[in-house]
Amino acid sequence: MTTLDDARALDARDPIAWLRDAFVIADDDQLYADGNSLGRLSHATREAIDRAVTEEWGRGLVRSWDRWIDLPVSVGDAIGANFLGAAPGQTVVSDSTTVNLYKLAAAGTRGGGQPHPMVLTNATNFPTDRYVLEGVVGPDRVDLIDEPVTVESVDDALGRRGGQIGLASFSAVDYRSGALLDIAAITAATRRHGALVLWDLSHAVGAVELELDAWNVDMAVGCTYKYLNGGPGAPAFLYVAERLHDRLPPVVQGWFGAADQFAMHPSYAPAPGVRRHLAGTPPVVALRGLEAAIATLGAAGISALAAKGRTLTGVVIAAADDHLRHRGFDLATSREPSARGAHVALRHDDAWRICQALIAHASVVPDFREPDIVRLGFAPAYTRHVDAYDAVVRIARVVDQGLHEAMPAERARVT
Amino acid sequence: MTTLDDARALDARDPIAWLRDAFVIADDDQLYADGNSLGRLSHATREAIDRAVTEEWGRGLVRSWDRWIDLPVSVGDAIGANFLGAAPGQTVVSDSTTVNLYKLAAAGTRGGGQPHPMVLTNATNFPTDRYVLEGVVGPDRVDLIDEPVTVESVDDALGRRGGQIGLASFSAVDYRSGALLDIAAITAATRRHGALVLWDLSHAVGAVELELDAWNVDMAVGCTYKYLNGGPGAPAFLYVAERLHDRLPPVVQGWFGAADQFAMHPSYAPAPGVRRHLAGTPPVVALRGLEAAIATLGAAGISALAAKGRTLTGVVIAAADDHLRHRGFDLATSREPSARGAHVALRHDDAWRICQALIAHASVVPDFREPDIVRLGFAPAYTRHVDAYDAVVRIARVVDQGLHEAMPAERARVT
Repeated sequence: MTTLDDARALDARDPIAWLRDAFVIADDDQLYADGNSLGRLSHATREAIDRAVTEEWGRGLVRSWDRWIDLPVSVGDAIGANFLGAAPGQTVVSDSTTVNLYKLAAAGTRGGGQPHPMVLTNATNFPTDRYVLEGVVGPDRVDLIDEPVTVESVDDALGRRGGQIGLASFSAVDYRSGALLDIAAITAATRRHGALVLWDLSHAVGAVELELDAWNVDMAVGCTYKYLNGGPGAPAFLYVAERLHDRLPPVVQGWFGAADQFAMHPSYAPAPGVRRHLAGTPPVVALRGLEAAIATLGAAGISALAAKGRTLTGVVIAAADDHLRHRGFDLATSREPSARGAHVALRHDDAWRICQALIAHASVVPDFREPDIVRLGFAPAYTRHVDAYDAVVRIARVVDQGLHEAMPAERARVT
Repeated sequence: MTTLDDARALDARDPIAWLRDAFVIADDDQLYADGNSLGRLSHATREAIDRAVTEEWGRGLVRSWDRWIDLPVSVGDAIGANFLGAAPGQTVVSDSTTVNLYKLAAAGTRGGGQPHPMVLTNATNFPTDRYVLEGVVGPDRVDLIDEPVTVESVDDALGRRGGQIGLASFSAVDYRSGALLDIAAITAATRRHGALVLWDLSHAVGAVELELDAWNVDMAVGCTYKYLNGGPGAPAFLYVAERLHDRLPPVVQGWFGAADQFAMHPSYAPAPGVRRHLAGTPPVVALRGLEAAIATLGAAGISALAAKGRTLTGVVIAAADDHLRHRGFDLATSREPSARGAHVALRHDDAWRICQALIAHASVVPDFREPDIVRLGFAPAYTRHVDAYDAVVRIARVVDQGLHEAMPAERARVT
């Protein structure tokens, strides 16, 4: 049995418990289990956005570009240093994850060795990832792994295609199950077969330790509005390893990626380094908000955040064993702490209605994922272990009281 | 002679003089002549951004997506109705102008009749436009018009290439000279030659009347941080005429452009309508700010804004004739009100240093454009005619006092 006292004890010795106070928490009783979809607002981000709007834009006007122009690079480097294990000059922030994935998938398939490369991904990868890859090479040239993504399944798929695969792309942490892949080993496997690898780190960055440089990762993209608390629709990052900068052509040839942005050259020449993958004018206000959030999280450090992510998910799993297993829930997330991100997926036949009842009657905000997943993402930055425990207890109560049975079965939009 | 009293008289009968109070103007003595680069902040936008951050994100968290999900479409329709002459369902807001131009240029060249179409643009088009088009079809397949863009020069170029041109793309208002093209006639000319046309409206939208539907325009993109006052790096819009929706394939196949975004289909199917050209998660906070700015400007109406743009530029031109012609300045903008946007370009051999001296010593914020242009963009929403007149007088004074001669000749970054 795991008890509330066990969760309290974890909170008592939590080295980053102080970090919760950096965030806006309007209702202490509400258990926000969707920090992996949209992270909370920090006080620092709120202030940074207000300053960017009121002072930099409102008063400084166009002259503020002197201070804004390098934000995609400086915020990128800050993400690289704090969360990616990436040396400076390899990460920039701009555009959405989807657009960045498109840019790098297109660059990776054009800049590889094969004239008409295929792309490898997995059938359960996040939809936008599969859609983008289909668009880049055509649906007939996307090879899908139908089983769990492991070194072995990737190795098999690459071997089966005998050098036709130019690019492999996976999500480091699965958006449903929370499975954390062995990025280093899978990266090495793709290299052995002569393919480039492009990682989607959206559900991993800020939740688990990443060492892109040490793992010889080729390319990566990721979202900043989940565990990096950049705000709804905050711009995404992209990473390209330095050794590939000259080899991978920029695909959206925009002025922010040109060698001399303001020289008005007759023809496009790419900027040196990763900057060439920038395209248009960056979203300045959102970048300022993100910059502040990264400074806040960086003060805690990814080691502490990731460790807390493991203990939070550990509490959820232990409490689910005690309270939910005999109520029709199956654990869809690994019990091995090093093989999961910071969210836990629970399968239940009535998952949709249970999620709706949790929101309506139990002040728990979970996430439903098709077809039968209750997803609980407890961001380590601001979630207490007692909240993770309490959420499970509330789920049990909702089911016992049959509150979900009164909820509409029809699916509404889910983000 | 045009006098200060003439400018005062124009202000006295300005039907949208009240609109100035809707904007944050920190320093009444500062003459902001760069509203065509970065428009001013409105009070409504400041409040909308604060509400989006504090209330919708901070308190509402992920549940606010119910209110956010349609913003790219609703804000797009508002731009269409107020500024583009576009019926609903043809305009969306998302991504940067560069990325939108890329998406539509790629869609337009893939969805046209020719297997390997060429693209027509002009040699002096805005750099990012030329760069993007080069990237889409390759530099060898971009045909450049070297003379002014007119119905005749476009017709000649299309005829010369005998049906090889699949797409023509021009800026409706030239970013340097302010020349406003005959969009309707040039659009008709491209159609006669079987090419699609893609207009960049960045320096036109909010400054001049546009009637995209009536003019049979195929596609357009444009910026929202200039005359639409959306803020630095605010997302851009794209327009695709309804008759082309099914014909033009979405290029960046993202989940926000998929038929059923949350259904997690195994394969991509585009959403009906223009929505298919959306890609990733939209920048919510910036969209809220833009939405408020559009409501503010829409209350004045584009007819009044455009008319005031013509009288403001008229004052600048008349005053420049009186005060600047004999001081080494040449007018690089049309004297015909219907043939220009809302900015005026003045050529001077020492333009760079004059711009620097204006900022440093005369509290005028102009824009320098290579190689010799002083660009004066007086946004109609918040600029008084006396300000336009005063700016010209201050330029004359700076030159007379030789203040520019002490400024460094070396070019700094210019946005």
